[in-house]
Amino acid sequence: MNFPSKLLEDAVLEISKLPGIGKKTALRLVLHLLKKESKESESLANALLNARENIRYCKKCHTISDHELCAICTSNKRDKRVVCIVEDIRDVLAIENTNQYFGVYHVIGGVISPMERIGPDQLNINSLIERVITDTEIKEIILGLSPTMEGDTTAFFITKKLKSYPIKISTIARGIPFGGELEYMDEVTLGRSIATRTLFETKED
Amino acid sequence: MNFPSKLLEDAVLEISKLPGIGKKTALRLVLHLLKKESKESESLANALLNARENIRYCKKCHTISDHELCAICTSNKRDKRVVCIVEDIRDVLAIENTNQYFGVYHVIGGVISPMERIGPDQLNINSLIERVITDTEIKEIILGLSPTMEGDTTAFFITKKLKSYPIKISTIARGIPFGGELEYMDEVTLGRSIATRTLFETKED
Repeated sequence: MNFPSKLLEDAVLEISKLPGIGKKTALRLVLHLLKKESKESESLANALLNARENIRYCKKCHTISDHELCAICTSNKRDKRVVCIVEDIRDVLAIENTNQYFGVYHVIGGVISPMERIGPDQLNINSLIERVITDTEIKEIILGLSPTMEGDTTAFFITKKLKSYPIKISTIARGIPFGGELEYMDEVTLGRSIATRTLFETKED
Repeated sequence: MNFPSKLLEDAVLEISKLPGIGKKTALRLVLHLLKKESKESESLANALLNARENIRYCKKCHTISDHELCAICTSNKRDKRVVCIVEDIRDVLAIENTNQYFGVYHVIGGVISPMERIGPDQLNINSLIERVITDTEIKEIILGLSPTMEGDTTAFFITKKLKSYPIKISTIARGIPFGGELEYMDEVTLGRSIATRTLFETKED
C-alpha cells in the first residue's frame, strides 16, 4: 500500500504490529482518530504509556496489579486456603466474572511448551512451590489450566512437584458445557463425561 | 468486567473506544503490549500522537498530506485535466493501488446523508466547484462515489452544480466484478450490466 503521508504510514505500521490487526484495519483506526478531536488520541496514547510504565505484577500471585500485592491477595473476604493455578491474567478475569470462586490465584504466565521453548523455568512455577512451602495456610491447589496437551503437561509437572506436600490437588471439571448439544460433542469429551459421571442431585434431597 | 488494576482498565477502555474493537480484544492488545518491551508501546503512542498533531490535508484535493499540497497534486507526472471525486482517503489509496489512474483527486469527505445530518455544506463540494471554476485546465470529472443511495444523491448534486461548466462528467463503470459468478449476482447489477453492455474487444482488432 502506498501512503500519501509518512506520518500516516508510521501510525498504520505501528498499529498493524498489534496481533490480529492488519494494515486495512490499522488505516481505518488511524482515520477514525484523525476525524475525532486530538484530545481522544492523547488520552489513548497516555493510557497506553501509563499502563506500560506503571502496571506492576502482584508479588504473591503475579496478577496485574497497581500495588505490590493485588486486591485479591489483600482482601480479607477471600479464602487463602485455596489457590487456583491459571495460565494468565485473562483466566483470572474470566473466573472472577463467574462470581463463583472465593479463593486466591497463582498466575504461572503460560504453559510448558517445548515447541515454543517454554520450560518450567520460564513460568512462575518455582514461586508457586515456594509459596506452598512457606504459606502453611494453603490446603488446596486447583489446577485451572487449559485441557490441551501443553496444559496437561504443565498440570502433571506441578502435581509431581507438589506431591510431597500435605495439600489436596484438584482440577476444574471437564464435561459437556451447559447449553452444549450432545450429538455435536467430540468423542473424548463425551466419553470422559460418561466415565466421570456425577450423582444427579435434586433440590428435594 | 472487573479489572484488578485501574491502569489496565483505563487502557482497555481507551482502546475499546476505537471502532470495531470490543473490550475482550482491547484487553488482548493491552496484555500483548505489556508482554513486549516498553519501547514498542512508546513508539506506538508517539506515532499516534504525531499523526494526530501533524497530519495536514492537501489544500487542493483534501487528501491526507505531510505538506501544504500532496504528492499527487504536485507531481508533474499526473494528468491535471482529469479529477476523480471520491468519498474519503481510503478510496484514494484503493484507486492508487490499482496503478491504473493517472489523474488527480478531490476528496469530498463523505456523502450527502440527511439521516446523519450531512448536507453539501459539510462536504468539500464548494471547494470542488471553486476548483473547477478557477482551474481552467480541468476537462473531466470522474465521479468515483459508492453506488448507494447517498452516493447517487451526492453524484446527482455535484452533476447539477457543474452542469453549466464546459467539462465532461463521467462515473466509474458499474457491472459484474471480475471473478464474480453470474448466478449469485443481484438483479439490479445483472440487469444494468446487460443494459449497459460494452463492445467485446479482442487483441486481434
